[in-house]
Amino acid sequence: MGREELRDLLEKLRRERPLVHNITNYVAMNFTANALLAMGASPVMAHAIDEVEEMVSLAKALVLNIGTLSGKWVEAMLKAGKKANELGIPVVVDPVGSGATSLRTAAFQRLTDELSLSVVRGNASEILSLSRDASKTRGVDAVHAVEQASRAAGALARRIGSVVAVTGEVDMITDGEHRLLCRNGHPLLARVTGTGCAATTAIAAFAGITRDPMRATAAGLAFFGLAGEIAASRTKAPGSFMISLIDALYEIRPEELAAGARLEKAPFDAE
Amino acid sequence: MGREELRDLLEKLRRERPLVHNITNYVAMNFTANALLAMGASPVMAHAIDEVEEMVSLAKALVLNIGTLSGKWVEAMLKAGKKANELGIPVVVDPVGSGATSLRTAAFQRLTDELSLSVVRGNASEILSLSRDASKTRGVDAVHAVEQASRAAGALARRIGSVVAVTGEVDMITDGEHRLLCRNGHPLLARVTGTGCAATTAIAAFAGITRDPMRATAAGLAFFGLAGEIAASRTKAPGSFMISLIDALYEIRPEELAAGARLEKAPFDAE
Amino acid sequence: MGREELRDLLEKLRRERPLVHNITNYVAMNFTANALLAMGASPVMAHAIDEVEEMVSLAKALVLNIGTLSGKWVEAMLKAGKKANELGIPVVVDPVGSGATSLRTAAFQRLTDELSLSVVRGNASEILSLSRDASKTRGVDAVHAVEQASRAAGALARRIGSVVAVTGEVDMITDGEHRLLCRNGHPLLARVTGTGCAATTAIAAFAGITRDPMRATAAGLAFFGLAGEIAASRTKAPGSFMISLIDALYEIRPEELAAGARLEKAPFDAE
Repeated sequence: MGREELRDLLEKLRRERPLVHNITNYVAMNFTANALLAMGASPVMAHAIDEVEEMVSLAKALVLNIGTLSGKWVEAMLKAGKKANELGIPVVVDPVGSGATSLRTAAFQRLTDELSLSVVRGNASEILSLSRDASKTRGVDAVHAVEQASRAAGALARRIGSVVAVTGEVDMITDGEHRLLCRNGHPLLARVTGTGCAATTAIAAFAGITRDPMRATAAGLAFFGLAGEIAASRTKAPGSFMISLIDALYEIRPEELAAGARLEKAPFDAE
Repeated sequence: MGREELRDLLEKLRRERPLVHNITNYVAMNFTANALLAMGASPVMAHAIDEVEEMVSLAKALVLNIGTLSGKWVEAMLKAGKKANELGIPVVVDPVGSGATSLRTAAFQRLTDELSLSVVRGNASEILSLSRDASKTRGVDAVHAVEQASRAAGALARRIGSVVAVTGEVDMITDGEHRLLCRNGHPLLARVTGTGCAATTAIAAFAGITRDPMRATAAGLAFFGLAGEIAASRTKAPGSFMISLIDALYEIRPEELAAGARLEKAPFDAE
Repeated sequence: MGREELRDLLEKLRRERPLVHNITNYVAMNFTANALLAMGASPVMAHAIDEVEEMVSLAKALVLNIGTLSGKWVEAMLKAGKKANELGIPVVVDPVGSGATSLRTAAFQRLTDELSLSVVRGNASEILSLSRDASKTRGVDAVHAVEQASRAAGALARRIGSVVAVTGEVDMITDGEHRLLCRNGHPLLARVTGTGCAATTAIAAFAGITRDPMRATAAGLAFFGLAGEIAASRTKAPGSFMISLIDALYEIRPEELAAGARLEKAPFDAE
């Protein structure tokens, strides 16, 4: 993905201010809305089954995030997702905690089975949770887990026809045929709740202004990670980091994103 | 509204620390509670239909905010509102997203139909959503929208016997007979989620210490807008702005409010 | 409790990063999660009745917090609590608003009746709410209230076999036989929402790494109060205080906790 493209995408995002409809968890709602506002998009949060179809019809992208889930929310997510599919609005899924409980894993499974998704973003365990070898991953060493997750991401991407991103120290993005790595980010991001959810919604904001989910994912993760790097250059503690992160999402200029993104193509091994 | 009155109202608020009961959306709950604490009031958040009557009986004002609404919450809002009406406790409504979905518009309609409200505060689209010409407002230019909203606010105020405030670049407050403009505020307020909700709760805090809803609205909006101006003098990015805003709500002294308020009477045109 | 023990406990917490499962209120969820992450623990928030048993099985401690309660949440709390009891996972209760409404008081009563609790932390009114003289406490002077709450805490601790902490200007911790006072803290803590909830979860984090609930409570309250003192040395307004508090939870080194804790034994009067 070229640096000029990145610059143009951020310019377009700031100009068009895409409305991103989020059905997301209670913990991350406020931070996610503030992240979207700071980066230049427009957030709306709405989960009632009676209004999600109308709301998503106004939006340019839909985020389905299964943190703090309960049964009724899954129904609302499916209803919103089906409407989004009908209207060609990209759907981005964050499978928070999939693998930790059967409610979450089953919810992630249903979203992938019943909807057509543009992007899925999770950490290694979450992405592995839908893999058939999931049971084998407990207790394996971290390097092995990343390799396994990377293979599982490719398989998931091919099976559901979506881009899948596994985020961690290095982020891996795949559509099942190609792979990109994103090296932006900072360890302090893991010390603030909702940063994963906010990275997902950054992807959705870019998905709201480009038809190419691979590019949207790369742009969202590079942009969010770069904001983390800038925040970490200003403070070393998580409270003020969280605030500087929001500031950076607002301040990063398109040409700074172009210069600061650390994206690279990676070989796609036979699997 | 005189400057001495403003000073006295803020002094009284800080002395009496009115308890404000909020039935509000998930996104804004934390920020709203912190705004109330910072300004010197006491917040309580409670939405369960089983406890709202008891809770509102302890309060000096009630806020009903329809963001992140679901059906059951409307019932709890009506129950709390009826109890508040019975006890003479002022009810302040924030019709977040009314006009965007029928669930929200219907909820706003029911609150105005079934309760006696002291103050309604919304943006132009929200206030226009209950107007009979609402359908005509889509796509009109912004200036026209403000004029239309201003007329709709007057009509709504007369119909429901409440003060109505339309906030935007300049805030307009009316009881259907008189009009006040408030010029306090800053564009960065629109880059932080929940600032509209917090402005509503600031109105409620003042409504908890004065019988005059027009004065409470003017004081709340001037106070909140002035805090935004002070925050914007300290930082130009939304994360640190949000924190400075809370700081300013705490720091503004009564005489600073008196000096900094930019309220003026406006002519009330025949409609 | 010796200073070396405190140092060792914080070292252990940072090394083991205990997972704390929180079923808590909407207002405090985000702040609580950030406080846990900052101090070095791992938070998970999950309330669905379908998943709380599985989730708590992964955790080292469980927090049940009854703010923004509704009926269904109490059932999930009891289910999670029973599973935790079965597995020997400590359960820490924060009875937010008990005494203010019957829903809350009844919920607190059920948690104490049906579960075996390790620690209960509340303010004076909340702890008094389950006392038989509760009705007598309205309108009594503050000093009297603290004495009454202190006696009620001892009685409650003996009745339910739990440590009970009454927090206020000075915190009092008792297991019904011994008493500790904690003098750490700062008045600005009362100007930020969710600080009581976060103090409770700090206790839970320590309860996740030591078998002794009295020590866990003392360590949690001293640590959280010290973070408040450090934050107050950096700023005098509640917005930036809240952020500095999170920073301080991250920055305090084990030997600083050992040096800064202000814990003392108190005589246990015949009652």
